[in-house]
Amino acid sequence: MNLRPGSLLSRGDLERRLREIGENYYHDKHPFHRLLHTGQLDKGQVQAWALNRYCYQAAIPVKDARLMARIPDHTLRREWRQRIADHDGGEDGGGGIERWLKLTDGLGLERDYVMSREGALPATKFAVGGYVHFVSEMPLLDAVASSLTEIFSPVIIAERMSGMLAGYDFITEETMAYFKPRLTQARRDVDFALQYVLDNANTLERQHGVLAALRFKCDVLWSQLDALYFSYVDPRIVPPDCFVANGR
Amino acid sequence: MNLRPGSLLSRGDLERRLREIGENYYHDKHPFHRLLHTGQLDKGQVQAWALNRYCYQAAIPVKDARLMARIPDHTLRREWRQRIADHDGGEDGGGGIERWLKLTDGLGLERDYVMSREGALPATKFAVGGYVHFVSEMPLLDAVASSLTEIFSPVIIAERMSGMLAGYDFITEETMAYFKPRLTQARRDVDFALQYVLDNANTLERQHGVLAALRFKCDVLWSQLDALYFSYVDPRIVPPDCFVANGR
Repeated sequence: MNLRPGSLLSRGDLERRLREIGENYYHDKHPFHRLLHTGQLDKGQVQAWALNRYCYQAAIPVKDARLMARIPDHTLRREWRQRIADHDGGEDGGGGIERWLKLTDGLGLERDYVMSREGALPATKFAVGGYVHFVSEMPLLDAVASSLTEIFSPVIIAERMSGMLAGYDFITEETMAYFKPRLTQARRDVDFALQYVLDNANTLERQHGVLAALRFKCDVLWSQLDALYFSYVDPRIVPPDCFVANGR
Repeated sequence: MNLRPGSLLSRGDLERRLREIGENYYHDKHPFHRLLHTGQLDKGQVQAWALNRYCYQAAIPVKDARLMARIPDHTLRREWRQRIADHDGGEDGGGGIERWLKLTDGLGLERDYVMSREGALPATKFAVGGYVHFVSEMPLLDAVASSLTEIFSPVIIAERMSGMLAGYDFITEETMAYFKPRLTQARRDVDFALQYVLDNANTLERQHGVLAALRFKCDVLWSQLDALYFSYVDPRIVPPDCFVANGR
């Protein structure tokens, strides 16, 4: 798929290209997700997923803080601050990271172990670190564009919620509490970020940049599943010192 | 393996602990290397290895430049500059990167394609990026310590040279030109860096830091092989747009 348009795209065409990237590269197509969402994994494999994905969840507000620190305009910073609050919670606790820990609790993983990231795959940490650094170092517009995978998340979240509740007796509504608020939060975030990208990607170079940024972000998500598949599905080669179900 | 000593180690004990990390975590133990060095891969799999490994080779002098930029002392910078020259070459060309491209040439890969990194696995790029950022952001002593995997490289290089020449009819002395100079260069570099680390890791916190840095670097190398194994050996799931032998 050629991601580099030869001449300046209209607003509508740019949006269409961004959505095409999701159709081709978003991680809902990854074989690990197909197994996860259709009840074909065992509890240890779901634990490995939740434990590794914690690294990603925990890095999101750090990524957003790095992005916010680069925004000169207070109204845009205000918009971005809401994302951090959604993940970090408020005075009364809550927030996406704590909800994710309810999932790992429900799966029987020790909180200290999860939060230490000690058992996570190096590949997970490298991909997550790559995302944080991308947002810190690339043009601000590209950093905003890399968040646009949220365009595609409502479908995967709905599929995951119904598929995992139906497929696993160790999964309950309560342990899945992370996902439901994300449906509305992601929608609100993406409405804003997509308008911002379409408004500001007004040169060919900037259009190349935002398309490449979204493509990059798809790699960040995809490669985390490659690593999970390799270590916990087939051929099940776990790197030294990483999580082994029932065997830490 | 507990990498965090409880009390300050003697110089000899610190060196022993560093060498133990190599014995336990260095990538000579990875199953991909066992296949590579015993003639058990096909040409496409060796191409995939060389193409991905190019990303690592090409990043080494960038990593060294980032490290050098953080050194306040000109005599230590001078020492480090030699490493960059070894990889980037001099007025008459040469250097490790060009020697690596002779290997990819010899394997029938197009130079532009290799150098574009377009076909490389995202996991390779994330691991390599993780190393570059580690060296840029962590304490200088840890950055130096992360280079100490060179302690262990002479064995793997010797094994690779003899094993690959014997195992593959598409590998010649000329295409393997990268490796021979590395035997002496790595020895010289490591003599210096090891003394520097042993001289300067004189608090418990610094000793923890250098041991963790070397452990981290082993993950950088190991996870690149995990990704190659996953995509090109078993189960051979290649991420979107990445290199496919005979099928670009």
